[in-house]
Amino acid sequence: MKKLFYVFAVFTLSINFVLGQNAPEDKKWEEQFKSIPDPVNLRAYMERLTARPHHLGSAYDKDNAEWILAQFKAWGLDAEIEKFEVLFPSPKERLVEMIEPVQFTAKLKEPKVAEDPTSSQFDEQLPTYNAYSADGDVTGELVFVNYGIPADYDYLERRGISVKGKIVIAKYGGSWRGIKPKVAAEHGAIGCLIYSDPQGDGYFQGDEYPGGPWRTADGVQRGSVMDMPLYPGDPLTPGVGATKNAKRLKREDVEVFTKIPVLPLSHADAQPLLAALAGPVAPHKWSGNLPMTYHLGPGPTKVRLKVAANWEMKTIYNVIAKIPGSEFPDEWIIRGNHHDAWVNGAADPISGLVALMEEARGLSELLKQGWKPKRTLIYCAWDAEEQGLIGSTEWVETHAAELKQKAALYINTDASLRGYIDFGGSHTLEKFINAVAKDIEDPETGLTVWKRRQLLEIAEAQGAKQLGELRQKPELKIAALGSGSDYTAFLDHLGIASLNLGYFGEGGYGVYHSIYDSFHWYTNFGDPDFIYCKALAQTAGLAVMRFATADILPYDFTNFSSTISTYVDELKKLATDMREKISETNQQIEDGVFAAIADPKDYALAAPKREIVPPFFNFAPLENAVDALQRSANDYTEKLTAFRESGQAIPVDLNKKLLQNERKLTHEEGLPDRQWFKHHIYAPGFYTGYGVKTLPRVREAIEQKKWDTVDQQIEKTAAVINGFSDYIGSISQELEKGQE
Amino acid sequence: MKKLFYVFAVFTLSINFVLGQNAPEDKKWEEQFKSIPDPVNLRAYMERLTARPHHLGSAYDKDNAEWILAQFKAWGLDAEIEKFEVLFPSPKERLVEMIEPVQFTAKLKEPKVAEDPTSSQFDEQLPTYNAYSADGDVTGELVFVNYGIPADYDYLERRGISVKGKIVIAKYGGSWRGIKPKVAAEHGAIGCLIYSDPQGDGYFQGDEYPGGPWRTADGVQRGSVMDMPLYPGDPLTPGVGATKNAKRLKREDVEVFTKIPVLPLSHADAQPLLAALAGPVAPHKWSGNLPMTYHLGPGPTKVRLKVAANWEMKTIYNVIAKIPGSEFPDEWIIRGNHHDAWVNGAADPISGLVALMEEARGLSELLKQGWKPKRTLIYCAWDAEEQGLIGSTEWVETHAAELKQKAALYINTDASLRGYIDFGGSHTLEKFINAVAKDIEDPETGLTVWKRRQLLEIAEAQGAKQLGELRQKPELKIAALGSGSDYTAFLDHLGIASLNLGYFGEGGYGVYHSIYDSFHWYTNFGDPDFIYCKALAQTAGLAVMRFATADILPYDFTNFSSTISTYVDELKKLATDMREKISETNQQIEDGVFAAIADPKDYALAAPKREIVPPFFNFAPLENAVDALQRSANDYTEKLTAFRESGQAIPVDLNKKLLQNERKLTHEEGLPDRQWFKHHIYAPGFYTGYGVKTLPRVREAIEQKKWDTVDQQIEKTAAVINGFSDYIGSISQELEKGQE
Repeated sequence: MKKLFYVFAVFTLSINFVLGQNAPEDKKWEEQFKSIPDPVNLRAYMERLTARPHHLGSAYDKDNAEWILAQFKAWGLDAEIEKFEVLFPSPKERLVEMIEPVQFTAKLKEPKVAEDPTSSQFDEQLPTYNAYSADGDVTGELVFVNYGIPADYDYLERRGISVKGKIVIAKYGGSWRGIKPKVAAEHGAIGCLIYSDPQGDGYFQGDEYPGGPWRTADGVQRGSVMDMPLYPGDPLTPGVGATKNAKRLKREDVEVFTKIPVLPLSHADAQPLLAALAGPVAPHKWSGNLPMTYHLGPGPTKVRLKVAANWEMKTIYNVIAKIPGSEFPDEWIIRGNHHDAWVNGAADPISGLVALMEEARGLSELLKQGWKPKRTLIYCAWDAEEQGLIGSTEWVETHAAELKQKAALYINTDASLRGYIDFGGSHTLEKFINAVAKDIEDPETGLTVWKRRQLLEIAEAQGAKQLGELRQKPELKIAALGSGSDYTAFLDHLGIASLNLGYFGEGGYGVYHSIYDSFHWYTNFGDPDFIYCKALAQTAGLAVMRFATADILPYDFTNFSSTISTYVDELKKLATDMREKISETNQQIEDGVFAAIADPKDYALAAPKREIVPPFFNFAPLENAVDALQRSANDYTEKLTAFRESGQAIPVDLNKKLLQNERKLTHEEGLPDRQWFKHHIYAPGFYTGYGVKTLPRVREAIEQKKWDTVDQQIEKTAAVINGFSDYIGSISQELEKGQE
Repeated sequence: MKKLFYVFAVFTLSINFVLGQNAPEDKKWEEQFKSIPDPVNLRAYMERLTARPHHLGSAYDKDNAEWILAQFKAWGLDAEIEKFEVLFPSPKERLVEMIEPVQFTAKLKEPKVAEDPTSSQFDEQLPTYNAYSADGDVTGELVFVNYGIPADYDYLERRGISVKGKIVIAKYGGSWRGIKPKVAAEHGAIGCLIYSDPQGDGYFQGDEYPGGPWRTADGVQRGSVMDMPLYPGDPLTPGVGATKNAKRLKREDVEVFTKIPVLPLSHADAQPLLAALAGPVAPHKWSGNLPMTYHLGPGPTKVRLKVAANWEMKTIYNVIAKIPGSEFPDEWIIRGNHHDAWVNGAADPISGLVALMEEARGLSELLKQGWKPKRTLIYCAWDAEEQGLIGSTEWVETHAAELKQKAALYINTDASLRGYIDFGGSHTLEKFINAVAKDIEDPETGLTVWKRRQLLEIAEAQGAKQLGELRQKPELKIAALGSGSDYTAFLDHLGIASLNLGYFGEGGYGVYHSIYDSFHWYTNFGDPDFIYCKALAQTAGLAVMRFATADILPYDFTNFSSTISTYVDELKKLATDMREKISETNQQIEDGVFAAIADPKDYALAAPKREIVPPFFNFAPLENAVDALQRSANDYTEKLTAFRESGQAIPVDLNKKLLQNERKLTHEEGLPDRQWFKHHIYAPGFYTGYGVKTLPRVREAIEQKKWDTVDQQIEKTAAVINGFSDYIGSISQELEKGQE
């Protein structure tokens, strides 16, 4: 760490010099660009795009795509709609009925809110459901499973509760929703209900809509439960574009549908079912904020759950606009945000989309004024994100060969609100995006958005070490990306360096995937003045422009290498912690701790099972790989600095080689049991869904206790990192040669 | 620590040898004693004592005292009732009314529960109220103040909310209840409501009575709000016994009444008031589990609060039974539990009292069989504990001179349930009470109660260090005592080594100070089989017997000294942490952190105030004192061991000197601003009430930021500890002389 820190200090002083050498006229264009995005336009776009429900397959989804296309064209951009044919189940039958101990039928319906005009568009709204649930009609006793993640079932097992043949009810939260039915089915459940506890995004958080931004008693979170950690996109065409004549799986061969029927519930619908449960009282951490004692069951609550969908092929509409590069048309910078929504979707996704549109308009203005991006810019409005990142995934799969050759960067946005810049992405872009954030003004404070975020992180820091780093380091850490939006196929499948940007942290957001995520909601609670939509357009636009005009593409490998180093430290600690924990638990079982602390007047709580104490693993290959990576990264920075100082002409293929760098972090073999995911640094967790697992081969082998595979996963990961280091080394050599 | 640990290891091997040399026949008497307590009797006593409400001044309170006296006498003990005349306010008028924004009148009434026969004894029940509240009739806007402790007001101030001229509503919990009106009045509030949130002891914890042990929507916690951290006991007679002709303060000169009217509420009564509040949303940590968003106010909720009491002099009845010592009648072992309750009080206090009674019966049986305690045993059933530890305090104050001379030990019990032994007290008794607990069988597991508690602590341990200590150390740590039961006057006022014993941790207890703390409740949820009441009688009885028959009183100073050493470490850390925290906060104010993270669309949240960074303090006097104490303690143990090995006769005055040891931890001057509290190691917190503050002079000076007094408090505390060390040294010399 110390050595690396030295490197930071030396090289970041000259960051603008070393990374992305932009001429003074670039700065002028940037200022010009930043002055263009206009809240009046952003508001007008949103009002138009959210006027009616516009989910995949709806009339207004197509209408919106055509309107976006028309705008792009009106601004003089070369734009087209690219269609795919995808499988989309929409609700045919939905029933949740308590048949014991009392009769109750769930409403499964969000009522209108008088103040919110679009909330009453019942005819066009997609009902509350979870897309890609299995069809089924099941009846069984209910069991409350907390979040429904694997650890929750470990606890239930200790309580002597099996979900075999039962229907589970899980709270939203704790994992991506699709994990809940997956894990429930793995444990033998026959159905799965997922409800929004007021603790998560309801009255516990703040005032309910329309008095505040939070979820009402009848509010429901729709959402896909497709097993996206296996592969996202159209379920019938894994790995290839869902073009008209693509080879398709048969529906019965698809692995990403849930194995059991699933429906989401409001807490008004869930409360009677939960309140009727008996059995052990749930642990405090499992209880939400409904006014009752949470019990685990099973029963006496007995529930019938019936789900049937219209499984239909639908056309989806990606809108793609291109601005060809003046010097390097085969170096692509791609910018995307989806346009489809679960219902009216003002925050998700239109808040991000209107920023993207205003950005495109701004760039088109610059073009008219004579600005010339060296590289090709591709602006994309994706369809069918909500069902499984389908629009972007199919596009990436269709154009994979060309993208692998040409893509330098993908910048994603999605829902965005007010507050603090939120940046995640490839750590090779950490210095780059920090520099961008230092040039954007926060509309509420007048600070830069970077400074405001730094001050937030200082306010939330734990301990002197973290505070010291936050005050001294020239960059804020960016988050590693898991999944949950359209960067997934770019980053995880192809290895295209990606960024995900947004503004969050002020106000609240309790209308996610409900009919209340509306223009009325957004203009009252989201970003009423569209000042952060504007900041988002400025942020992403500046990033695009800098990548478009840089003489040498501004990747940096020192922050990347130090971040990887911390991941390796985390993994070593994880292995040690698990070894110690299992050892200690075994000791406690032997000492009779669990028998001694069980209350004989309460339901039995058995000791956990004895487990094999994991062996020590050979982390040396990873440690050596990180060491080599750090040397390679430092060497690149030194060579680049020397090269800059030499004033030499930029080698012809330098940027073509550079833009490939992230590809070297993938391996064609993919991750264990999910070949579609090729990236070896970042992946969504197999059992978290959205949550990222860095160095996923090793981390998941340890977390899933596949002890005999850990050393092998370390070697495979180390090999990928070594390949990356060699590749960077070869670029450094080229820079050195350039100077000779 | 290392050195001390060595000392542990050496000396504890011979603990039974060194501490309390008991002959084999003592062991036989102990076994005999343990066989006596009988759940049938315990249940019968409880049924009789809880049959009607028996609060201070009630007919059944006197009736119970007379019945207890009759039992003691029937068992052949020399017993009497000792009366005092004390001031007791009982409710005359109680009104809580919301007058804006809607009309609502609080019920202030606990309804009967059909299954619970005593819950309908409305005529004899003391209504829900807080004793020693000021009378008053106030109307004002309401402010929600969380627990109502000083830190909560710091937050409110940052929110721009003043409680001046307002009525506050606080949750029960976070401090002793009496702190809430005290702090509210300090901040200018004109009234105080205290309610039981379901999070604390209601449905969040588990099923409500009568389906479970937890508080119902209408359940109310009565309780005293006298400012006991100033002095407990009869408010009119601080420091002296409230005998008939005692000199009394005028009511208007009493400092321990609240300055503002106070009433407790059920959550059913509190919810409408809280739900009508507007203003900022309360921080998450402040929210309870009512089904609503918690707001801070002030208003629009406007409340009228009216309280008026009958301020009357009442007679209280302590029942005192004596068993004279056969060899050392002037060495006293006192055992107490109160008999008065807020209403029927099955758990609090009768569960502990029936154990005490059965213990007294057991000892009287042994006496008949020929057992002879060397020392005098005094069994006490205190009255008027609930209002302010009045019975015990007045008795202690009345007999102070004699107690200072003679008292070797006070053992207290109070409410007790099922589960794990809970021991607190003077750390000079840590080895002693651990040894007792190793000889008592846990009725549910067959382990010793010591072993079961050790296994619980292992299960709850944080980290390897704590686990290692728990597994290796021969004793479990006992808790330092704050206040909240009848040991207070013995320990804190006179410096009599004290223990507080009970069993807790299984089931739940949500009927505290309500009409539902009844025989029906206890026999369903408390300890239905009276097996832990029996264990408690065995535990306290064994402790009494061992102290009564020991040849050398079994105090130990090594555990005491190592515990004091950890307190000094805590204080040094506290000072460092506060210095760093204030420094960091000042830095963040300067850096503009708080301005940057305030949401301009939310209610203003100001930066905290800049504070003076505390200086470094001179802990050397305390460190030197602890060092001397450790040497002195080790020396005593060595000398005692050598003395034992020498087979010498015990010096005549040894035990008389030994029993004085705890007195040397007091100083006549008392604590700052509360002279009644003389102990310099243990005290209830001035702003926590029940919660202990160890080394209180220093700890409270630091916590209350009285920086310029800290060094002086360190010196005064060090002087007391040095006096104690010298005293132990003088006893060691005597032991050495004995061998010469």
